[in-house]
Amino acid sequence: MPEYIIDGVQYANWDREVFEQMRAGDVTCVHVTVCYWEQTLETMRNLGAWNRLFEQHADLIRAVRTADDVRAAKAEGRTGIVFGFQNCTPLDGNLDFIELFHQMGVRFMQLTYNNQSLLASGCYEAKDTGLTRFGKQAVAEMNRVGMVIDMSHSGERSTLEAIEHSTRPITVSHANPTFFRDALRNKSNVVLKSLGETGGILGFSLYPFHLKNHSDCTLPEFCQMVEQTADLMGIDNIAIGTDLCQKQPLSILEWMRNGRWTKEVDYGEGSAADAKWPDPLTWFANNADFPNIVQGLRDHGFDEKDVAKIMGGNWLRFFEESFEGQKT
Amino acid sequence: MPEYIIDGVQYANWDREVFEQMRAGDVTCVHVTVCYWEQTLETMRNLGAWNRLFEQHADLIRAVRTADDVRAAKAEGRTGIVFGFQNCTPLDGNLDFIELFHQMGVRFMQLTYNNQSLLASGCYEAKDTGLTRFGKQAVAEMNRVGMVIDMSHSGERSTLEAIEHSTRPITVSHANPTFFRDALRNKSNVVLKSLGETGGILGFSLYPFHLKNHSDCTLPEFCQMVEQTADLMGIDNIAIGTDLCQKQPLSILEWMRNGRWTKEVDYGEGSAADAKWPDPLTWFANNADFPNIVQGLRDHGFDEKDVAKIMGGNWLRFFEESFEGQKT
Repeated sequence: MPEYIIDGVQYANWDREVFEQMRAGDVTCVHVTVCYWEQTLETMRNLGAWNRLFEQHADLIRAVRTADDVRAAKAEGRTGIVFGFQNCTPLDGNLDFIELFHQMGVRFMQLTYNNQSLLASGCYEAKDTGLTRFGKQAVAEMNRVGMVIDMSHSGERSTLEAIEHSTRPITVSHANPTFFRDALRNKSNVVLKSLGETGGILGFSLYPFHLKNHSDCTLPEFCQMVEQTADLMGIDNIAIGTDLCQKQPLSILEWMRNGRWTKEVDYGEGSAADAKWPDPLTWFANNADFPNIVQGLRDHGFDEKDVAKIMGGNWLRFFEESFEGQKT
Repeated sequence: MPEYIIDGVQYANWDREVFEQMRAGDVTCVHVTVCYWEQTLETMRNLGAWNRLFEQHADLIRAVRTADDVRAAKAEGRTGIVFGFQNCTPLDGNLDFIELFHQMGVRFMQLTYNNQSLLASGCYEAKDTGLTRFGKQAVAEMNRVGMVIDMSHSGERSTLEAIEHSTRPITVSHANPTFFRDALRNKSNVVLKSLGETGGILGFSLYPFHLKNHSDCTLPEFCQMVEQTADLMGIDNIAIGTDLCQKQPLSILEWMRNGRWTKEVDYGEGSAADAKWPDPLTWFANNADFPNIVQGLRDHGFDEKDVAKIMGGNWLRFFEESFEGQKT
């Protein structure tokens, strides 16, 4: 196995079984979502619930705030958990809340989740404002305190402007290239090249709607995409961001898509005729299946050094560069 | 001067002039109030405003989270600032928020502020419930994460139960003995003895309403009270907690007394005929005046070792024992 297996985003219905699967899959660290549409207090309640999980399952998981915490998790035989927002709603319009949430352990924040936000445009909006006035201030503050800018659900112009405006590398923690699957949630070669050139990271998604042939996508097809993206972005700038959502009811998918902002039903990447959770991939259904990806990459011809980079080494380097505040 | 001068509570209209006075007074560390009646979001905005002050006045002040941060402040020639709540309103009824606010740097919380709270009874209530069901859980959680239980504004029974229920020493950060000035906000010998026997700290208040003869209280009278209290509690269990409120308008005094909970005007320790801020003491009007207290204690006959304990050494030891989470 590679030394570190790190997943760029998950949102499970967290319980002991999921944590046991993480251990079975030799998963060193997972970035977990603590906010889709939640406001400040709701998000803090989610963080509080996570802190209780750390107490209740201390034999399996631990909090991760720094790259050294990931190494400690590895040494302890536990899975590290690092918090992230998929939206900027917890800021409550307050720039200062970025630092407060960083103090509470949050290390990733998407500037937008599908829709226009106070900071930038989502990937489903017809028009893309790019970074707003508040968005530029937020990027600078995130750079200062050590919170990663994640543009997975953002529009193309917003993403390019975030890359340009940020003084530190940013991420698209969970998406795939549009050359593999042309979807609003996936990223163009222009974005991916720019992301790679600035030291950023793309986490490959295993959510079926982001893949060619959706749930029927094969492991060799996935690995072929990885190889092509490595050629485009560089082997040091690609990683895994499964978007795995284990044990979640349909109501959670509907929450992700609709929040409280619409009365018309939004189907996200699905449709009225295909409104449910997609079937899981046969080769990646839960956290115990990470070794399948490792084997797939080996079979495709990646050497052990490159497999280690893709499966976790690149994330670890990125965490090392990203999670601490800038020296003043 | 004593090595460390540490003040157990202040609430100024913070600005550069106040911070310069702290430096002029050789003040090593101040516990500052960030909540009287504020709810969660309001309190977070206060914390955010403080974090901006740390950036803007980094030559004069720094954040304090641990006893080592106090020592660092001393070495750097800056004044350390540690946050505290005078009320439990920021918890929003959520036990988990104690840990989140600890992560944001809060190290003190009063269980009550004058009135009945969800946790215990305030010193102005006719009946004292002692610790409530939630109050007992909050004390245990504060013990776990390293947040100090402060009973300055609490009733007698509540204070005694907090001392008894807490597994770590607690504080009355700003009050005086009732033998010196019989006021609802001051503490009986029973409370003070129990506080001292359990390793707790009393911070002597310099707020005129807590003193004999109010604003006319003399420095020798104050020092005589210190000596008597040392005899009662032990020299290791007394310190300074000035309750200094520099540059605050009357509206702030009214806010402290009335919050948003009453339509009848509450005058706190004042009265309708005496509704204003009391005149400051001639020998302690601002942060530059701490050397006067040092001189007063020396003149009264305290030796340098005891002066050092009272002026900051005892607080530093207490911070060392109190601010870190319990090992699990």
